[in-house]
Amino acid sequence: MGIVYTEMSVSLDGYIAGPDETGFDRLFRWYENGDVVWETAMPGLTFRMTEVSMRAMRARLADTGAFVVGRRLFDITNGWEGRHPFDVPVVVLTHAVPKDWPHLGTAPFTFVTEGGVEAAVAAAKEAANGGDVGVNGGTIATQCLDAGLLDEVGMALVPVLLGGGVPYFGPLENGPLDLEGPIWTVQGKDVTHLRYRVRRD
Amino acid sequence: MGIVYTEMSVSLDGYIAGPDETGFDRLFRWYENGDVVWETAMPGLTFRMTEVSMRAMRARLADTGAFVVGRRLFDITNGWEGRHPFDVPVVVLTHAVPKDWPHLGTAPFTFVTEGGVEAAVAAAKEAANGGDVGVNGGTIATQCLDAGLLDEVGMALVPVLLGGGVPYFGPLENGPLDLEGPIWTVQGKDVTHLRYRVRRD
Repeated sequence: MGIVYTEMSVSLDGYIAGPDETGFDRLFRWYENGDVVWETAMPGLTFRMTEVSMRAMRARLADTGAFVVGRRLFDITNGWEGRHPFDVPVVVLTHAVPKDWPHLGTAPFTFVTEGGVEAAVAAAKEAANGGDVGVNGGTIATQCLDAGLLDEVGMALVPVLLGGGVPYFGPLENGPLDLEGPIWTVQGKDVTHLRYRVRRD
Repeated sequence: MGIVYTEMSVSLDGYIAGPDETGFDRLFRWYENGDVVWETAMPGLTFRMTEVSMRAMRARLADTGAFVVGRRLFDITNGWEGRHPFDVPVVVLTHAVPKDWPHLGTAPFTFVTEGGVEAAVAAAKEAANGGDVGVNGGTIATQCLDAGLLDEVGMALVPVLLGGGVPYFGPLENGPLDLEGPIWTVQGKDVTHLRYRVRRD
């Protein structure tokens, strides 16, 4: 049985996005600062990472069977035009199915409109078929933590200070929360890959 | 000539204090989770760190010639009763000298009431006599960053999520800001010691 994890690029001051949706160029610089070319499953989306970061990402994705994302990210990317760059099934937690999305019914996307993160994670576990489930940071990750659904928190810690923006996690119902680790660390170029285990005390 | 640095215990979600001044037991757990006894300069204040964290801290403090702190921390600790636990001169940035403080004039404490962080850091450099100057996180560190006074940002990254509280840095006037590093990493028990260099582009 796979685990449920979240993993995000995070600034030194704890943000996954800067003020007014800025900072992504800096947060994802490590996707582009190497010479290993990675053509993702999404046409035209190519990254050039260092070998060490590529290995770190491959290790994560090799075990990942599905993702859970929110409606906002789905809309911003237009549902990745029906195929997630990492080529895994996607569960979208939303209030309503986007009925005019052209890939509805053909893409490996599931829309969960009831039951909150519990239902979304359950659907993703089924889609993952024994693999890990990755959940998006921010609101969904926070809700998963509060619901006791999260097994691991990963971060790609990036040497930038954003001074504000969207924090990795929001207010916790059952916080503060102790984690174990880092249970895994890889130092890349302009990024430190870290994973922590959520305690089940 | 020494450098000017800040270094704090920081939660995975970027806070140096939890909501309503909670979380310190968790943020400073690594001060107490080992068997190397360190009797600080402040009577009665003893820490028990692991060997590896003790070495990391000694490396930092060996080079530190003075600290800059705000009035709030000074008041909370009652000015450490006139002697900082790390036994270095302290510069207090404040609106007014605490005239009823019993150690006034005898303790190695300087009160800077004008000229802001620039004046405080200048006073600390003088007191440090060639050593490094450590500035407190939060408001002062943010002001130092904005004024171009900070050379290094250090963090003791602690595996806890606080869900809110006091961020390491506040809004940056000249943010976002790129740093270099980590230029130094030590993995301790329940803490990852990291240092980053502030770029001077």
